[in-house]
Amino acid sequence: MLPDVQLAKPDVEIGLSRVGAKGIRKLVQVKREGKRPVILISTFDVFVDLPSTRKGVNLSRNFEAVDEVIENLTQNPVENIEDLNIRIVNELLDRHEYATKAEVLMEAEYILKKKTPFSKQKTQEVVKIFSEAKKWRDGRQKVFVGAEVYGITVCPCAQELIRAYSAEQLEKAGFTPDQISEIMRIIPFASHNQRGRGFVKVEVREDFKPRIEDVIEIAKAGMSYEIYEILKRGDELEVVKNAHFNPRFVEDAVRLMAKSAVEKFSDAPDDVLIYFRQTNEESIHQHDVVAERKATIGELRDELASNG
Amino acid sequence: MLPDVQLAKPDVEIGLSRVGAKGIRKLVQVKREGKRPVILISTFDVFVDLPSTRKGVNLSRNFEAVDEVIENLTQNPVENIEDLNIRIVNELLDRHEYATKAEVLMEAEYILKKKTPFSKQKTQEVVKIFSEAKKWRDGRQKVFVGAEVYGITVCPCAQELIRAYSAEQLEKAGFTPDQISEIMRIIPFASHNQRGRGFVKVEVREDFKPRIEDVIEIAKAGMSYEIYEILKRGDELEVVKNAHFNPRFVEDAVRLMAKSAVEKFSDAPDDVLIYFRQTNEESIHQHDVVAERKATIGELRDELASNG
Amino acid sequence: MLPDVQLAKPDVEIGLSRVGAKGIRKLVQVKREGKRPVILISTFDVFVDLPSTRKGVNLSRNFEAVDEVIENLTQNPVENIEDLNIRIVNELLDRHEYATKAEVLMEAEYILKKKTPFSKQKTQEVVKIFSEAKKWRDGRQKVFVGAEVYGITVCPCAQELIRAYSAEQLEKAGFTPDQISEIMRIIPFASHNQRGRGFVKVEVREDFKPRIEDVIEIAKAGMSYEIYEILKRGDELEVVKNAHFNPRFVEDAVRLMAKSAVEKFSDAPDDVLIYFRQTNEESIHQHDVVAERKATIGELRDELASNG
Amino acid sequence: MLPDVQLAKPDVEIGLSRVGAKGIRKLVQVKREGKRPVILISTFDVFVDLPSTRKGVNLSRNFEAVDEVIENLTQNPVENIEDLNIRIVNELLDRHEYATKAEVLMEAEYILKKKTPFSKQKTQEVVKIFSEAKKWRDGRQKVFVGAEVYGITVCPCAQELIRAYSAEQLEKAGFTPDQISEIMRIIPFASHNQRGRGFVKVEVREDFKPRIEDVIEIAKAGMSYEIYEILKRGDELEVVKNAHFNPRFVEDAVRLMAKSAVEKFSDAPDDVLIYFRQTNEESIHQHDVVAERKATIGELRDELASNG
Repeated sequence: MLPDVQLAKPDVEIGLSRVGAKGIRKLVQVKREGKRPVILISTFDVFVDLPSTRKGVNLSRNFEAVDEVIENLTQNPVENIEDLNIRIVNELLDRHEYATKAEVLMEAEYILKKKTPFSKQKTQEVVKIFSEAKKWRDGRQKVFVGAEVYGITVCPCAQELIRAYSAEQLEKAGFTPDQISEIMRIIPFASHNQRGRGFVKVEVREDFKPRIEDVIEIAKAGMSYEIYEILKRGDELEVVKNAHFNPRFVEDAVRLMAKSAVEKFSDAPDDVLIYFRQTNEESIHQHDVVAERKATIGELRDELASNG
Repeated sequence: MLPDVQLAKPDVEIGLSRVGAKGIRKLVQVKREGKRPVILISTFDVFVDLPSTRKGVNLSRNFEAVDEVIENLTQNPVENIEDLNIRIVNELLDRHEYATKAEVLMEAEYILKKKTPFSKQKTQEVVKIFSEAKKWRDGRQKVFVGAEVYGITVCPCAQELIRAYSAEQLEKAGFTPDQISEIMRIIPFASHNQRGRGFVKVEVREDFKPRIEDVIEIAKAGMSYEIYEILKRGDELEVVKNAHFNPRFVEDAVRLMAKSAVEKFSDAPDDVLIYFRQTNEESIHQHDVVAERKATIGELRDELASNG
Repeated sequence: MLPDVQLAKPDVEIGLSRVGAKGIRKLVQVKREGKRPVILISTFDVFVDLPSTRKGVNLSRNFEAVDEVIENLTQNPVENIEDLNIRIVNELLDRHEYATKAEVLMEAEYILKKKTPFSKQKTQEVVKIFSEAKKWRDGRQKVFVGAEVYGITVCPCAQELIRAYSAEQLEKAGFTPDQISEIMRIIPFASHNQRGRGFVKVEVREDFKPRIEDVIEIAKAGMSYEIYEILKRGDELEVVKNAHFNPRFVEDAVRLMAKSAVEKFSDAPDDVLIYFRQTNEESIHQHDVVAERKATIGELRDELASNG
Repeated sequence: MLPDVQLAKPDVEIGLSRVGAKGIRKLVQVKREGKRPVILISTFDVFVDLPSTRKGVNLSRNFEAVDEVIENLTQNPVENIEDLNIRIVNELLDRHEYATKAEVLMEAEYILKKKTPFSKQKTQEVVKIFSEAKKWRDGRQKVFVGAEVYGITVCPCAQELIRAYSAEQLEKAGFTPDQISEIMRIIPFASHNQRGRGFVKVEVREDFKPRIEDVIEIAKAGMSYEIYEILKRGDELEVVKNAHFNPRFVEDAVRLMAKSAVEKFSDAPDDVLIYFRQTNEESIHQHDVVAERKATIGELRDELASNG
């Protein structure tokens, strides 16, 4: 019989906050009504804790369990990624009887089909979707689902500087104030713009089950405009023009995601947690700019209401 | 005069947990006694919050301040990276009067000179060092310094399986129990081994100032052995042999880092925070295994004491 | 009507070796007999040249064509990735009438199902597969298919040092030369081992169509052993023991891939091109070691034959 | 005495195109007149070949030589990175007597100090610099030096679409053709813009020694404008305005780099090799666009001359 090393007492008896595996890749199939399942090539990070009261080292003994659990639970199409994750943490707690907590993070690339804004060409978009689940031995659990998407963001500040500069030049060139204000209204003025990344993570509960499609739409709500892999000339005009009539600070992008979430999740209980992040890969700098908000839906409702 | 766009009221008035810039690169010089300063090509992430009570959008107005602060504070050699970071958050709070909190994370690669274990060849080692500082308007602050290093880790479980297999084979070949137990003692048996990454982050305070050299040594304390860029044959034997006489689970690596920290930081107050992580890039899997502990030094002292 | 900027003459008339797009993501379905198609989330890089004789700038005018071509050609399941690529370069040459050459590189992660060596557990493995196609206006074309896989490699050199050390220790402990040589035969001695990456790229032609399954097997032929995501204790023993009875230099890994290719591709014409690379993520260093060979199948046949 | 495993004959006798190590990190000091040396935290990839005629496996025996050579040659400040690389390949050929070729690639981040365009604030810029050297046993050698930099690029095509759209709108609003053409001249119209990466690699010879400062300037020559880490409002206007009066296709960026190289390297022999690449991280797409040119300086001179 093979020896069971991990049951031996460790020399140094100190508890561990988390022990686990990162980067387990599995093919996950998610059911769709009336269609073939969606295929997600997924990456899982899984953890349990190892309390000092246990004073043992036998997590590694059960590393086989980690992959086995995921392997078994991904054999057949699943309803959605958060339910899969809940089953994973349940099974991890069953198999690691000393653990007081189990966690899983799963992420995958998801391909959306969409059409370009003007010529209506079919094209595809890759978005990152993910789900986290934590479960404690006493039955409490926290489950999240989220998405990260790309879009174009146009800087309002640089655009305002360009508008002021242009107004001055127009004045020098003899245009009247009325003409200048008409020109200001009509023309999409230059600014710097860049790839923006919108990120949303929202709590999933028995009494609140956000749809991944809504989460993806919220993540896009802060962009100046959507981006596309194919752009015919008419589409390119549409994207650039609309983006420039819609300039947004990184802070605004987060505020607009928050507003969109409050609208879309009107049935969400007040204490549902939600997290937003916008990252702009600034075209005028080597660094990125970032804004974040972490709140409950209730807090966001209050802040929006008080704007009156 | 140029317009000041960011003072305009946002359409959606929602506070932000953090707004800032990621990936600002600066050359930092750290003083050394009797030597030329150490050069660190550093990356900074800096953030302030933007409370909803302020209802403004004028962080971006001050983005220039972010780089300016770092640029000014890195013109001359600094005492150490944590002091630099404290000055950065102080100055960020000064310049962003509405913010209640400022944060900075700085990281850099640091080159250590060392000698190989047997032939005593000079060689270099790259370690990552970093510091985080958060400061609140009310004066509270949290400052950390940390390091991440590479080493070799040998799996005790696989080695035990190989030992059991070998004992069985030796028995079949007619060796006596005494001979087998002698062989077991003498020989470095095979196992899987791999690059391990040790990570430590510890609180820095007025009453406790850990040296970065100690932090780096603690991060190495969980390895089966150190690794080197040059290895003459005698050195290679030394590394592989010693590593295999010193096999360690990922959990043990964290426990040994914790033990080392308790020993090295014997003068640290009990409530100093410390965080450890070990990541092994398993040679028998495509995934990594990870163990973590987050605790106060006092908690670690208690757990170690109760081991008897 | 929208203006056609790219037809304007450039200020500086210099030809371009390649112009194109990198990182276009598309879902590709590959047919399988009697089963649902394999889903590949693929990344495409596509290029054409822009000769100085043309002196125009109208590639960008046709960037829309690049995505459109891929989008159209990936609407339906394809026979295999190399045929898809050939159709892409044909269509790029049709649409960019000035180009003398078109190129495409497509890569994707491919999930293999396999069983562990001892307990026969089902598990999955992620391998990278790719295909390159270049076509010239005069009809010539070069098409390749390839794969990159992970496995464990054990260093023969360190193992030999450990064996020599062990023999010496056994001698000191009083074992006889016969006993020592028996022990040397039986025991899997320690060495350093690590994740190895095997990479193979082989030409595809009208008269030679390698199967991707064979390419993947060749890429694995240089490893000391396969690796798995799940390993029960019996499996772990099997992997570690066999890997250590099968130590291999990075150079040997390439030689064994070459030998495997000559055997598997016995029907390949002599002038078929093939390329091998092995990268070992050395557990005793921070750097990797690499070996490569680029040859025709005929050259490899000659070298192997002359070994006698 | 320790055994010398690598002298044993391999089972499969096949030559290798390249064997070596990737990712060796070393601190390199480069001399500067009248100042302290520049510190480069450098990464080296080094290779030699292993001909089948040799039929041996003894590269790994000399892996220690690889690091030792670099370690020894980087102990003291060097004149420049290409001379360091030449010394490395010379020494590799000396130590690996069977090899017919040795290669090294070294790269590092280099910090430039510069001032912003309007407010003249001091700031820093990180550029990547690198050098490659190959040397053959028969004395031939090829040495290159290069740089990769970031800047902003503005798309001329999208801008032309926006101009056409704006002209149409101005016409509808009753502006006269003269007024419209005046407005067209004055205003920086919107377009999409993004981070661009310019890459240049040029041959270094006895009779031609390009300065790294010139190589960096050439790499920037294709941008619509430079970018900065600090930008006061006046600077931001300057960058965005000038970039939009200077829109450039990815193809033009390469052409302008080529033109700049011909001008700066007026003393270069005609057969000096040079390579350019521009990559734009398109803000309206998830993919990047790329243009490349590989030529001799003589070929570029001819193409430019024939533009007349």
